[in-house]
Formats: sequence, C-alpha cells, structure tokens
Amino acid sequence: MLHNLLRNEDIILASQSPRRAFLLKQLGLKFRQISANIKEVENGMPSDDFVKYYSMKKADKVFKNNLNSFVIGADTIILIDNKIIGKPKNYNEAKEFLRTISSNCHIVLTGISICFKETTISKIEKTKVYFNQISEQDIEEYILTNEPMDKAGAYGIQGFGSQFIKRIEGCFFNVMGFPIPLFYKMVKELFMRKE
Amino acid sequence: MLHNLLRNEDIILASQSPRRAFLLKQLGLKFRQISANIKEVENGMPSDDFVKYYSMKKADKVFKNNLNSFVIGADTIILIDNKIIGKPKNYNEAKEFLRTISSNCHIVLTGISICFKETTISKIEKTKVYFNQISEQDIEEYILTNEPMDKAGAYGIQGFGSQFIKRIEGCFFNVMGFPIPLFYKMVKELFMRKE
Repeated sequence: MLHNLLRNEDIILASQSPRRAFLLKQLGLKFRQISANIKEVENGMPSDDFVKYYSMKKADKVFKNNLNSFVIGADTIILIDNKIIGKPKNYNEAKEFLRTISSNCHIVLTGISICFKETTISKIEKTKVYFNQISEQDIEEYILTNEPMDKAGAYGIQGFGSQFIKRIEGCFFNVMGFPIPLFYKMVKELFMRKE
Repeated sequence: MLHNLLRNEDIILASQSPRRAFLLKQLGLKFRQISANIKEVENGMPSDDFVKYYSMKKADKVFKNNLNSFVIGADTIILIDNKIIGKPKNYNEAKEFLRTISSNCHIVLTGISICFKETTISKIEKTKVYFNQISEQDIEEYILTNEPMDKAGAYGIQGFGSQFIKRIEGCFFNVMGFPIPLFYKMVKELFMRKE
C-alpha cells in the first residue's frame, strides 16, 4: 500500500489544493505542499496531452529545486463536448455554465505526473459526471450561495452542488480532486521499475 | 434547493452516522441527530424492500416522539451476488471479505425514508462499485491499519481503502453514505404534494 511503498520518501505535492491534500492525508502519507505557480494557457493540444503536459510542468518545476524528493503534479480540467470549462468570470457566466451542464454529461479529466530520481511518469484519468436538470430557480438560488464562483464548471461536487449530480461513471476520487487508484498504480510501476 | 425548501422545518436525522451528518451539513441544513436504535435482522425480504423497511422503521420510531418534525431515516447495505456483506467479525473474516470484493463488483444499496406530517415516503438508490485486484500483501497491510474492522464490506471508501477502488457507476453520494440527489428529489415530491 502507498504508506508502506513511500515511507522513506520526502513527498512533495506540487499543488496548493486543499482537496488533494485532504485525500493524500487520508492515505497516511506525510508530505509538503509547494505550489508550482504555473499559469495555464490553452495551446491547442488535445485535452489528454494538455493535462499531462501541465501536471508534468508543475512536478518538474518543483522537482528542479528538490532533486531528492518524490514530487507529485496534478492538473484537472472539465470538458463538455471537448471544450474546456474553466471558472466562471462573473454571475452571468456562472449561470451560462450551469445551463450547459444541466441535464448533460461532462468529463473530469486529470493528469498526474511523478518526478522521482531519473524518472518522470504521467498518466490520465477520465470520469463522466451526469447532471440532473437544474431549474432556473435552482440556478438563481445556487448562484446566491456563491459556491459556483471559484469552481471550474461553476459547481462544487461537495457542497450545495451535490443536489444536482445524478451519477458518475469512473474514478470516484478523480471527481474529488485526485485519482488515488491511478496514483497507486503509478507508484507500483515506478517502484517495480526501480528495483 | 434543499436549504430553502426545508428552512422552516425542524429536521431530525434518525441516524448517528457522522458521514451522513457531514453530507447534510454541507447542504446548509440545520438538523438534530437522534438514533433510532433499531437492530436489523435478515428476514428473507428482497434487498430493495429490506433497506426501505429499515429506513422507514428508523424514521417512524423517531417521528412518533417528534410529530412536528421532518424526520429522515436511512439504511445502507453492501451486496455481492445478492448476498449482504456486513461488518467483519474478526481479522479472518475481514480477509475473506476483501478477497471476495477483490477484482469484483458490489452494490451499495440505500433506502431513504422521510416522515413528515401525515406522509411517509421511501425510495432506494443503487451504486455499483468496482474494485481492482487486492494482492495478498495488500490485504495483510490493509488489515494492519485496522480500517476494515468496523466497516461493512471490510473497506472504507475514504481512507486507506481508496487505493483499491477502480470505478463506480451511479450516485457518488450514496457511496459516501447518503444519496443527496435522491433525497432532494423526494423533498421536491413531498412539498409539491403538500401544496
């Protein structure tokens, strides 16, 4: 298990996300968080490559100053019809996003990269999220909670937004912010490669 | 949304579960928790009826002493091949359960009942949970964390057990302990019926 495989490593999570930190703590891992501070720019890459690229860039940047550490980078985007949905700029855009995800399915796509000794590995995880219909009244009431304003896709899965989420298909933890089973798989591969 | 629909009700959750309370709190609901203290006995009922029956029994028992309240009962079981998997009695049974869920799919089945004024309504939610293979070494290491011992199915979805969970199909929140979107649907139905 992860807490045994990684017990001797100096783990750094190259992300300030409290949700990612929460999930890693539950695994009994001790780690530091260092933000990579990398600005993401849509660059025409296919979305799978995009999240791999940025998770790698984040991990790489922190690894360069911590060459003896085990550095984890992650990048998550939300896709509808292959289009990235970011954080809403204002109330009107939040409403527009909520109307787009209502009665619809979107994809939570995460890239994970690990930099450790001479190896960097990256993988992706995709989870489908199906929403119930969100009525206009619910959109108005939801906006008033302010929850949508700092969230990609204009919803939080844990919070008021939970009322609208019909079903998911795929990794449970990806939707929470960090695909733990994928990470475990990567660590096993990495350590088998090392031995 | 729920916090608006229920703002004038005296809500009671007829369950001591901290995970259910956590999920309801995130919805901005104010409520009390009163345990119904009902012992469940396998009685040959089909599993759908079983969880409905016990969620209703829990809600009913608390409602009888709080006739002006809005009482929520819930009952969750884990099923493999239509057989209920409860909490393991000892380390050996925990290992046996983990070998059974390894590389397998099981169902998290929840019954929710609401008692409010002259109405009781009950519904169920089913979510499929697929596990990766759990190696014998992982089973040994997982048992040593003690996490499996007080959990139905011998695993906790949030904790060390998260490493093994390949994917889910269905309600995200059901797996966390309380199917919020189903509850929202029930409340909307109940209030439309009342008006």
